[in-house]
Amino acid sequence: MSIIYLNGQFIPRATATLAIDDRGFIFGDGVYEVTRVVNGELFESSRHLKRLGRGLADMRLQPEESLADIEEISRRLIVENGLTEGEGTVYLQITRGAAPRTHHFPPAGTRCTVFMSAQKFVVPHDKRATGVSVVTYPDIRWSRCDIKTVNLIPAVLAKQHAVDNGVFESIFVRDGTITEGSHTNCFGVIDGELRTYPASNFILGGVTRDVTIELAHELGIPFEARPFHVQDLPRLEEFFVTGTTTDVMPVVQLDGRPVGNGRPGEITMRLYNAMAKRLYGGT
Amino acid sequence: MSIIYLNGQFIPRATATLAIDDRGFIFGDGVYEVTRVVNGELFESSRHLKRLGRGLADMRLQPEESLADIEEISRRLIVENGLTEGEGTVYLQITRGAAPRTHHFPPAGTRCTVFMSAQKFVVPHDKRATGVSVVTYPDIRWSRCDIKTVNLIPAVLAKQHAVDNGVFESIFVRDGTITEGSHTNCFGVIDGELRTYPASNFILGGVTRDVTIELAHELGIPFEARPFHVQDLPRLEEFFVTGTTTDVMPVVQLDGRPVGNGRPGEITMRLYNAMAKRLYGGT
Repeated sequence: MSIIYLNGQFIPRATATLAIDDRGFIFGDGVYEVTRVVNGELFESSRHLKRLGRGLADMRLQPEESLADIEEISRRLIVENGLTEGEGTVYLQITRGAAPRTHHFPPAGTRCTVFMSAQKFVVPHDKRATGVSVVTYPDIRWSRCDIKTVNLIPAVLAKQHAVDNGVFESIFVRDGTITEGSHTNCFGVIDGELRTYPASNFILGGVTRDVTIELAHELGIPFEARPFHVQDLPRLEEFFVTGTTTDVMPVVQLDGRPVGNGRPGEITMRLYNAMAKRLYGGT
Repeated sequence: MSIIYLNGQFIPRATATLAIDDRGFIFGDGVYEVTRVVNGELFESSRHLKRLGRGLADMRLQPEESLADIEEISRRLIVENGLTEGEGTVYLQITRGAAPRTHHFPPAGTRCTVFMSAQKFVVPHDKRATGVSVVTYPDIRWSRCDIKTVNLIPAVLAKQHAVDNGVFESIFVRDGTITEGSHTNCFGVIDGELRTYPASNFILGGVTRDVTIELAHELGIPFEARPFHVQDLPRLEEFFVTGTTTDVMPVVQLDGRPVGNGRPGEITMRLYNAMAKRLYGGT
């Protein structure tokens, strides 16, 4: 039986319900995190908590639970849900609580809703061996994509566009520039140099993005945080997307055209292997 | 006791709960409407339903309830909640239902969540007599503002900014141009001509905006659908905001400076009175 955390209580998922006027439901007024769990350990927990802290501040959300509480609750959910071995994720969502509908903030003392769950995760190893296809999609999002909010309609529509096209992911294009995927960050190689969109208000600074950049430095791979423009795409030698449940995912086809030689690239696979080592240990 | 409609049932509001994985909560994946009720009658119901139909299509939402069902449910809620006299509103929200979390759409057959409620509304007559103040705020929203979704964080932050500044409303500025308010449309008068931002993907085409334009035509007030730029603001002779619960609200101060002579304008008051007549009848 799946156990979740909701507003101070550990309860069976099947019995968990929300108030109809939760501001998460009425306004999407909240933030979230998804953290990877490997053999019971939270992967890069401090980075997730740091980003969460920034998001709470930007959104002026003040949950009763501290970041330390959240880490402790995560660990308990891992144990309660039998995830001390194998792969899993912890999902966390914090909203501005339940209150009569007003666009402005609810009365002082309204308790933030804090929902956390832990579940098994099945790594799609087959997709990572062959690489995946992606399509581009207009980046219709707001200009604070750096806050990990649950206002996710553009991501929903973009990912569904990918599904409709039988591919893994949609890649957002804003003003002729690749920003990121619907739930991933994007990296490419041009002239042997690894590139990704710079950290800014137009992308979500992914934890796996940060780790990937660290790994590139460790491996001596030339890297620069600068965007690709749409007209650069035919010159891509390699392309991949990264994310908490995506790790380093090679992309071999973009908008129906092969990337590079149409197989996972060399730099991509070096980073893929380095990421696996970081996740699972070993040499 | 307040009675609401939720997924086929009329139930007391106090007993209504949502599934923790409702996509309204997890992704803000839904649309909404607020319709005015005057003495038991829905104001401009067909316009609200038409806009709802467009939003459902754009979002690819397919609730079991037809638009005719929704109108019928609205009428029943008005009766059940004792709103056959006086003022009220009907709130409607439709989300993509409850399902395990995936960015893409849930499995076929997942029932949309349909939530509707009816409540009393107290018209702020005093504010309308004196006029209100507003402040400008950066329009950080996505580029499909024409869909009335519950991805409302920018509206929440903008309205809270107004509250923090002790004023009625925040007015969005995108690329140097006034688009609309956080929950209102904006009209201004320059050189005797009434203007508002044209219907496009950058504003929500308000029902009250449409009625206001109709009334301007009936009254022979010169009107053009074109935007004001920030540099036009000092030239404003009049300014007002419109909305389902805002009607025609005179604005007498913008960013701390008086609009025109600092009192509700003449064209504004003609439209205010015409709107009152449309709402309440009489001559």
